[in-house]
Amino acid sequence: MIVIMRPDAGEEEVEQVVARLKKLGFGVHLSRGVERTVIGAIGGEREKLALASEGIETLPGVERVQPISKPYKLVSREFRRDPTLVRVGEVVIGGEEVVVMAGPCAVEGEEQLLRAAEAVARAGARILRGGAYKPRTSPHSFHGLEEEGLRLLARVRERVGLPLVTEVMTPEHVPLVAQYADMLQVGARNMQNFHLLRAVGRTGKPVLLKRGMAATIEEWLLAAEYILSEGNYQVVLCERGIRTFEKETRNTLDLNAVPVAKELTHLPIVVDPSHGTGKWNLVRPMSRAAVAAGADGLLIEVHPNPSEALSDGPQSLRPEEFSRLMGEVVRVARAVGRYCREPVGALSP
Amino acid sequence: MIVIMRPDAGEEEVEQVVARLKKLGFGVHLSRGVERTVIGAIGGEREKLALASEGIETLPGVERVQPISKPYKLVSREFRRDPTLVRVGEVVIGGEEVVVMAGPCAVEGEEQLLRAAEAVARAGARILRGGAYKPRTSPHSFHGLEEEGLRLLARVRERVGLPLVTEVMTPEHVPLVAQYADMLQVGARNMQNFHLLRAVGRTGKPVLLKRGMAATIEEWLLAAEYILSEGNYQVVLCERGIRTFEKETRNTLDLNAVPVAKELTHLPIVVDPSHGTGKWNLVRPMSRAAVAAGADGLLIEVHPNPSEALSDGPQSLRPEEFSRLMGEVVRVARAVGRYCREPVGALSP
Amino acid sequence: MIVIMRPDAGEEEVEQVVARLKKLGFGVHLSRGVERTVIGAIGGEREKLALASEGIETLPGVERVQPISKPYKLVSREFRRDPTLVRVGEVVIGGEEVVVMAGPCAVEGEEQLLRAAEAVARAGARILRGGAYKPRTSPHSFHGLEEEGLRLLARVRERVGLPLVTEVMTPEHVPLVAQYADMLQVGARNMQNFHLLRAVGRTGKPVLLKRGMAATIEEWLLAAEYILSEGNYQVVLCERGIRTFEKETRNTLDLNAVPVAKELTHLPIVVDPSHGTGKWNLVRPMSRAAVAAGADGLLIEVHPNPSEALSDGPQSLRPEEFSRLMGEVVRVARAVGRYCREPVGALSP
Amino acid sequence: MIVIMRPDAGEEEVEQVVARLKKLGFGVHLSRGVERTVIGAIGGEREKLALASEGIETLPGVERVQPISKPYKLVSREFRRDPTLVRVGEVVIGGEEVVVMAGPCAVEGEEQLLRAAEAVARAGARILRGGAYKPRTSPHSFHGLEEEGLRLLARVRERVGLPLVTEVMTPEHVPLVAQYADMLQVGARNMQNFHLLRAVGRTGKPVLLKRGMAATIEEWLLAAEYILSEGNYQVVLCERGIRTFEKETRNTLDLNAVPVAKELTHLPIVVDPSHGTGKWNLVRPMSRAAVAAGADGLLIEVHPNPSEALSDGPQSLRPEEFSRLMGEVVRVARAVGRYCREPVGALSP
Repeated sequence: MIVIMRPDAGEEEVEQVVARLKKLGFGVHLSRGVERTVIGAIGGEREKLALASEGIETLPGVERVQPISKPYKLVSREFRRDPTLVRVGEVVIGGEEVVVMAGPCAVEGEEQLLRAAEAVARAGARILRGGAYKPRTSPHSFHGLEEEGLRLLARVRERVGLPLVTEVMTPEHVPLVAQYADMLQVGARNMQNFHLLRAVGRTGKPVLLKRGMAATIEEWLLAAEYILSEGNYQVVLCERGIRTFEKETRNTLDLNAVPVAKELTHLPIVVDPSHGTGKWNLVRPMSRAAVAAGADGLLIEVHPNPSEALSDGPQSLRPEEFSRLMGEVVRVARAVGRYCREPVGALSP
Repeated sequence: MIVIMRPDAGEEEVEQVVARLKKLGFGVHLSRGVERTVIGAIGGEREKLALASEGIETLPGVERVQPISKPYKLVSREFRRDPTLVRVGEVVIGGEEVVVMAGPCAVEGEEQLLRAAEAVARAGARILRGGAYKPRTSPHSFHGLEEEGLRLLARVRERVGLPLVTEVMTPEHVPLVAQYADMLQVGARNMQNFHLLRAVGRTGKPVLLKRGMAATIEEWLLAAEYILSEGNYQVVLCERGIRTFEKETRNTLDLNAVPVAKELTHLPIVVDPSHGTGKWNLVRPMSRAAVAAGADGLLIEVHPNPSEALSDGPQSLRPEEFSRLMGEVVRVARAVGRYCREPVGALSP
Repeated sequence: MIVIMRPDAGEEEVEQVVARLKKLGFGVHLSRGVERTVIGAIGGEREKLALASEGIETLPGVERVQPISKPYKLVSREFRRDPTLVRVGEVVIGGEEVVVMAGPCAVEGEEQLLRAAEAVARAGARILRGGAYKPRTSPHSFHGLEEEGLRLLARVRERVGLPLVTEVMTPEHVPLVAQYADMLQVGARNMQNFHLLRAVGRTGKPVLLKRGMAATIEEWLLAAEYILSEGNYQVVLCERGIRTFEKETRNTLDLNAVPVAKELTHLPIVVDPSHGTGKWNLVRPMSRAAVAAGADGLLIEVHPNPSEALSDGPQSLRPEEFSRLMGEVVRVARAVGRYCREPVGALSP
Repeated sequence: MIVIMRPDAGEEEVEQVVARLKKLGFGVHLSRGVERTVIGAIGGEREKLALASEGIETLPGVERVQPISKPYKLVSREFRRDPTLVRVGEVVIGGEEVVVMAGPCAVEGEEQLLRAAEAVARAGARILRGGAYKPRTSPHSFHGLEEEGLRLLARVRERVGLPLVTEVMTPEHVPLVAQYADMLQVGARNMQNFHLLRAVGRTGKPVLLKRGMAATIEEWLLAAEYILSEGNYQVVLCERGIRTFEKETRNTLDLNAVPVAKELTHLPIVVDPSHGTGKWNLVRPMSRAAVAAGADGLLIEVHPNPSEALSDGPQSLRPEEFSRLMGEVVRVARAVGRYCREPVGALSP
């Protein structure tokens, strides 16, 4: 349920409503818009009944009380009309800029990471991505350099001057990863790891929340709701392909999710065409398509030498290919009324 | 298997190879490119063995003989490198132009059809679509005006000057529908109606082949192969959404299919975001995305009054919305190095 | 809508209601149960309004009038409470007996067919299956012996004394196939070939309707509704596996469909574990499971020499395996209160 | 890779091979069968090359060395031919007995739990299930009584004398839950929570591993491989329905997984038709089908008053329904050559 305050309602009136809602047993969440304040009240059936007899609607400063029709509340457009802007270092996701995050799937060593990072920075990427902890289907696969990987990422971040997004896999690791990363990534397999969601929520750091492989958009938004429930609204959704019967692609990148999310939630949404398709030669066209559909950014795997990558080589771009991608994305972003940072110069050979 | 002729091979040499292949029991298909002729030879195991001992490779004018690795042969890029151009009236699909086909889902009457047709023509559509025979899940639903619908379509085509694409549902109707239509549509439910595929193949008319709701891209190309096997290469593929677990959209429009198809086949591919999403408010963003992904055209449902449509109202655009869509598509097409016909002028109120 | 007559309503009263409904523009369908007659009235919105003012409910002999909540009407349990018994020759499907239909996927020749037919008859099969027309994904595959196959089937039927089920693929072939077959099969790819459904409906012959690869149960029942709408209630549903992301099996045999169908419809349902799994070694356990779930029968592919089969060899059982299956099915059928015909004797070596 | 020792190989020879493999960098796992010992050696590419030059095959007592073709090693039938028996208290899963585990979805209070537990014990259940920690899609739903729930479970276990299986959701809770539970359940959403898998592996307690909603059977076995890699072979697989397009059921219970798993792995497999279908009236037929397909057990939700359940009411059985289910399962188990404990007596009204 949301309580919409009158544009001229004062702070005191807001506080009075909040106090009453808390007394009734509701969780209370404030959304202060440009024009007015909206108060979200989350609670169970018993409280709602209690509420009915209390008459929140008659309190001073209240314009109207309105139920939220969706199962997710804080992430819904009903609760907050204006788009949420998520800040990662100096980069803003969810505004006019189309933000490209790029880097290798897994950190394999300083040389590999640095070459990838310099290439993507030069080509216009705004955030560096790289995995230190890798969720792998088999226990016998490479699982990342772990803390050593985090240290390398931090070192390379200094060199190239881009903020850093990296994955955290389990609640226990959250404090450590949060110490190094500018943005915490929750992977597709962990989209419903509810303890992890709460833990990243409590850090207050921006979170990149990937969609689960068979998650409906509603379940995805409810996963985001776990993070917002901890008071952390800095959440970016990331579409990365869903599981279908089709075999030509590793996953089916579901771009419909972009305009659907734009309608249902105020959170920004970015697209990962590398995992979403699993084939490097589909990454460019699907990146263009994602931006045309309205995505707020892209997450792209780039490796200086994909054929030797320890994970996800077949879907990684070479630096030259990434540079070409950036050029195309710049043009499409412009065609849909947005912008994307242009490459600094030609790549060295 | 394909036989690649030398650039300087003469007609007589081609004929000699063809004759030999036919004698060996192969079906023979010619592809005459700008530089050279390629001969496709389709046949079973026995013939291939026979062939080995015959030595096609040593015939005069033959450069080399090469197997086709895919199960589809005539539709594959291996058989024909250059893109196929499909001609519908004076419109060419598969070239630089992004071709928009639009109109109502079902023909309901002359007034409704004419208003829709005039609106889409004015806004830049190049081909008129409209259903006279409607495949419906329930026997108790509206199934179209049938032959009367075809007559109305033909009449309105005269008025607005656009060629016509319309669906044919069963082999028995093919001659009748082919008499009225400029392009025959085979619907998603009929993608593996093999007798229908052969029947439209034999007409020689251009065919719009929709992807089945749960068809892999490979099965779809094999369905096209049925049509090409009858000697008809004028086939346009149409992605229209696949069936997944997601519930926010009626189907999951699979735009990955666009770049995948571009790689595997020489046939053009267009996208139907109306059926693909099932929601009118997703049609604009997904149209932009389709064009950015490389689609050769769009198929859009437009109705003068969607809330009164006898079928698929929720996914139909009003003329004003369609006009806005065209403006956006023109810009995205330009951004990816193609063009799309611009609206003639503002819509009358 | 259904009109439930009183137990003591006479023929004259039924006729009066029918006449009134027809006059109102409804399609009328009678279901005469043991205790009472139910009249199904199928029609659009306009007629329903007209009806309201006519007061069917007050006619003599009428107990009550009740809407059918499902989109399918004639196939629903609401229209007909008692299970429909389908008769194929002397065999009854839908009663206490679990009916096994078996034979080769495709008829390849008299010798192969006869050996398969004799083996399955000896082992307890009640109906012979075999394909003369084969829907194949590729135009370059074996498509069956066609009319010659039908003739062989008819000849072998005489020898082994089992009625015959075989597939018909297109409306044009219906009269020919109906001449030879005791039961017409509509394949998964044709589940929404609406002209074919109407055509087999008009023959009055029993129909085996396979579920489409991505068809919901509701769509499947609506496909059956097309057949019943032509006055033919002799329809058996056949679950044959749906398409999912799982790769260990060719399809995912959906046994949930058995109890779901039992609840929603009065039509019998059988299961095809050969296509449903695509692997011969899963056929026995899934046959046992199907019967335990409540299936009215099984459709099993048996080939005297699966490794040489022209189609679907990997999922075909050898005669010895089929015989073992029958023994197991007999025991499970008994455990769930049904019976299945026992093997006549040991197989000859 | 596995090293198969000769039947007469002594302990010393086994140790010699183990020592050599460890020196080469392999992880070593022993499987001592009735006839002979098999040594599993898990390692990367470099070690394998080293191995080639070492000649394990020539060591005394070695019969032969053989690669494991599947990506999972320790869970595969190639590594261990004999079925693994999992012991939960005095109950053995994976032998001739079909083991039924039953109880409420969530522990709601002592009264509710005790009534359910007494009813299922009386009806023949062998293990008590009940959730103290509940993974819920929404942060606003009931999440279980947590530690208080564990205490209630332990108390009721004493009363009814059944061992206890309950879910653990995050590595941090493993020690606490392991203190109360006889078997740890890993839920579908956590099937690829790799840190949790390792944590339950290290406890040495039996684990019930549910299949993820969109997990292939191969991924599921690889998840089990994580647990076995920690030295814990007491793992039971649990099929609980996969996600498809079908809407009549909450999930599609994939019984094909039962015979497929039996072929690929030595681990037992049980089936959860309550979550698998989501509808109480499908639980009985699908339980019968699961046992007929070869399942080693069932997991059934029973609630004394389903309509008031705090979670999953629509799929919970009343005690009387459960009792009826047990009677049917006993008969089907017998028909497939197994047994299931019979109800102690009639339920009190």
